[in-house]
Amino acid sequence: MQVSTYDLDKIAEKLNLSIKDLDKAFKKKILREDEYKEQKHLLFKKEFKGVEKGTVIFLNDNLDVVRGYPKTYRAITLYPTIKKHFIDKVVVEEKLNGYNIRIVKIDGEVYALTRSGYICPFTTKKVKKFLNLEILDDYNEYMLCGEMIGLNNPYTPYYYKEVDRGYENLGFYIFDIKERETNKSLPVKERIKLCEKYNLPHVKPLAIVDKDEAHIHVRKIIEELNKEGREGVVLKDPDMAISPIKYTTHYTQCEDLKSAFTFFFDLGIDFIFSRIVREGFMSYEFKETLEERKKRAKDLGEAILSPMVETINKVANGERVSEDFELIFDSEEDFDEFLDFMRKMKMVITIKNVEEINTDEGVKIKALIGKIYNKTNDKIISYLNGTLWE
Amino acid sequence: MQVSTYDLDKIAEKLNLSIKDLDKAFKKKILREDEYKEQKHLLFKKEFKGVEKGTVIFLNDNLDVVRGYPKTYRAITLYPTIKKHFIDKVVVEEKLNGYNIRIVKIDGEVYALTRSGYICPFTTKKVKKFLNLEILDDYNEYMLCGEMIGLNNPYTPYYYKEVDRGYENLGFYIFDIKERETNKSLPVKERIKLCEKYNLPHVKPLAIVDKDEAHIHVRKIIEELNKEGREGVVLKDPDMAISPIKYTTHYTQCEDLKSAFTFFFDLGIDFIFSRIVREGFMSYEFKETLEERKKRAKDLGEAILSPMVETINKVANGERVSEDFELIFDSEEDFDEFLDFMRKMKMVITIKNVEEINTDEGVKIKALIGKIYNKTNDKIISYLNGTLWE
Repeated sequence: MQVSTYDLDKIAEKLNLSIKDLDKAFKKKILREDEYKEQKHLLFKKEFKGVEKGTVIFLNDNLDVVRGYPKTYRAITLYPTIKKHFIDKVVVEEKLNGYNIRIVKIDGEVYALTRSGYICPFTTKKVKKFLNLEILDDYNEYMLCGEMIGLNNPYTPYYYKEVDRGYENLGFYIFDIKERETNKSLPVKERIKLCEKYNLPHVKPLAIVDKDEAHIHVRKIIEELNKEGREGVVLKDPDMAISPIKYTTHYTQCEDLKSAFTFFFDLGIDFIFSRIVREGFMSYEFKETLEERKKRAKDLGEAILSPMVETINKVANGERVSEDFELIFDSEEDFDEFLDFMRKMKMVITIKNVEEINTDEGVKIKALIGKIYNKTNDKIISYLNGTLWE
Repeated sequence: MQVSTYDLDKIAEKLNLSIKDLDKAFKKKILREDEYKEQKHLLFKKEFKGVEKGTVIFLNDNLDVVRGYPKTYRAITLYPTIKKHFIDKVVVEEKLNGYNIRIVKIDGEVYALTRSGYICPFTTKKVKKFLNLEILDDYNEYMLCGEMIGLNNPYTPYYYKEVDRGYENLGFYIFDIKERETNKSLPVKERIKLCEKYNLPHVKPLAIVDKDEAHIHVRKIIEELNKEGREGVVLKDPDMAISPIKYTTHYTQCEDLKSAFTFFFDLGIDFIFSRIVREGFMSYEFKETLEERKKRAKDLGEAILSPMVETINKVANGERVSEDFELIFDSEEDFDEFLDFMRKMKMVITIKNVEEINTDEGVKIKALIGKIYNKTNDKIISYLNGTLWE
């Protein structure tokens, strides 16, 4: 790889690293060169000496930096975790179940970056269509951080009634605006003011509470969100001086398990332990009665066993199980570009159906795509054929 | 370490390894020197080039070898696994839930070796007391392989009514007799004949069936054992020409999970996935109705959640949770020797109670010992105090 054609000194300085560090990152393949429509950039594949995973350096004259979105840590108990973590007030926002996107404008071009730092052509096109991104002309140093949600996406296909566009269930909600070179967040109020000024969809606070009583309020909110089948909350310092923390519903723990155990040999082992521990601490903290705990246990057991047995049944009947998602493209060209991107991501997919649909915005392409989990399919076949477990 | 004082050539030859291999095993710390009452021996800590984990070479004139007990693989489905694995007939034996022991006599001394190849002073004394080991004088080349079961042992304390001795619940059942230098097993019939001749307690066949119909019989036996709260079966070729395979009950899967999730941060993550997968394939193969599957899911969920919440409650109330077992010793000296052995095993234990008891065999020492799981205790405290999950 050729790394001598751009100014390593300047990159090192911007990231607060030494040249030696950069060399090391290249050698360890943590830092790699990537390309999107001839725009070359560098990508941090992992966290490295304070530089977040997913950080991207555009190889233009400015060497524009887009820092990776920091990991949001999780509260296992509401009390005393919230009280200990925050300074004074706590902003409670809903956590949406989609995928994390940073939107930036570099040299006049809009890019939507995934959590891992890939410029996703599908998402880039959608955000350009959904949003008026004037704000990035006025504040080019910002990145709009938010959640892309809805059924029609390739990462976290999950229905949300509020993003129904008729032929497509997809939408973007900003939950953070940051200086893209420093990762400094705007205070919650300023973020909301800016979003309102530029008419951008954004996550609204559910409550602003004192940290000492926050656990009582959050528990009520969580119980409500749980009933509605929603994911959970992110808790924030009003000034964003403290890193946010998250907490999720029983419903989400079970949904995560259901998805993971549908493809259990691929996803089960990584998902299960953390979800179960969350449930254990929630049952303890919510001082459940024996009846309530039994109900929770039943939900958990079914979230694990049912999808697993259903998958084994399907494979036994000769089916190859896949995780299917339906995407809407404006043109064949967009569809092809997306497929190239999936290949680059090393996702194994199969195209199950492609059709043209008429919409109020003209003819579109609707593609049904299946993500293949080879390990689950192959191992099930093998055990059904008599292979022993070692 | 001094390895030059004994004949490496002869050891290499006996194990069908080269001197170079032996050197490598020493260097990688797979092969180590150990000692029991001044009897030095070498121990394979891991499987190495065909030599089983737990293989021991006594450093006497003969360089007597005791091969490690081979891993018993597991059937995930009964059909077609049994049919494919065996030649003709299949012997169905009950699998007991205790710990695997090999009994040998070397230079006139009896030793009981654990699965890992440690000479356990506790077990050695118990088998010498429980069994008449004349057989090892007549057949010094054999090792008696069996399961030590019952509540009063330090490894798998699990009550079995058939080994109740009044003041102690403990007993040994032979399930295999092997040539200790070659690991060759006696045919099932010969093993039983020898056990009967020498009046040794042994596992008796529950059935001998044709491999083609074995899955039907085994399912019935498993359902019966499940009702009785017993572990499962080991399936064997009558001539022991094929390696045995095992299959366990729903009851056992749940009991395993209950034990593991009592100390969930220490044991949970390693136990859970395999147990759940076994349940998934069993539910599929037994063609369960929706009701039956829901019952299984409920059992699974409760086996995971309940012990976890109970442990969190205990720790929240200031208790330090431990796995307790009660052992009976003949003398203070035996007790001390056992404690030294536990320290050598790097087990963290606490002595909770010691008392003298009167038995029909005289005064004995009854000790209540707790095995400490530090990770579970410490992590729970930490999350209860507000530590975030990374």
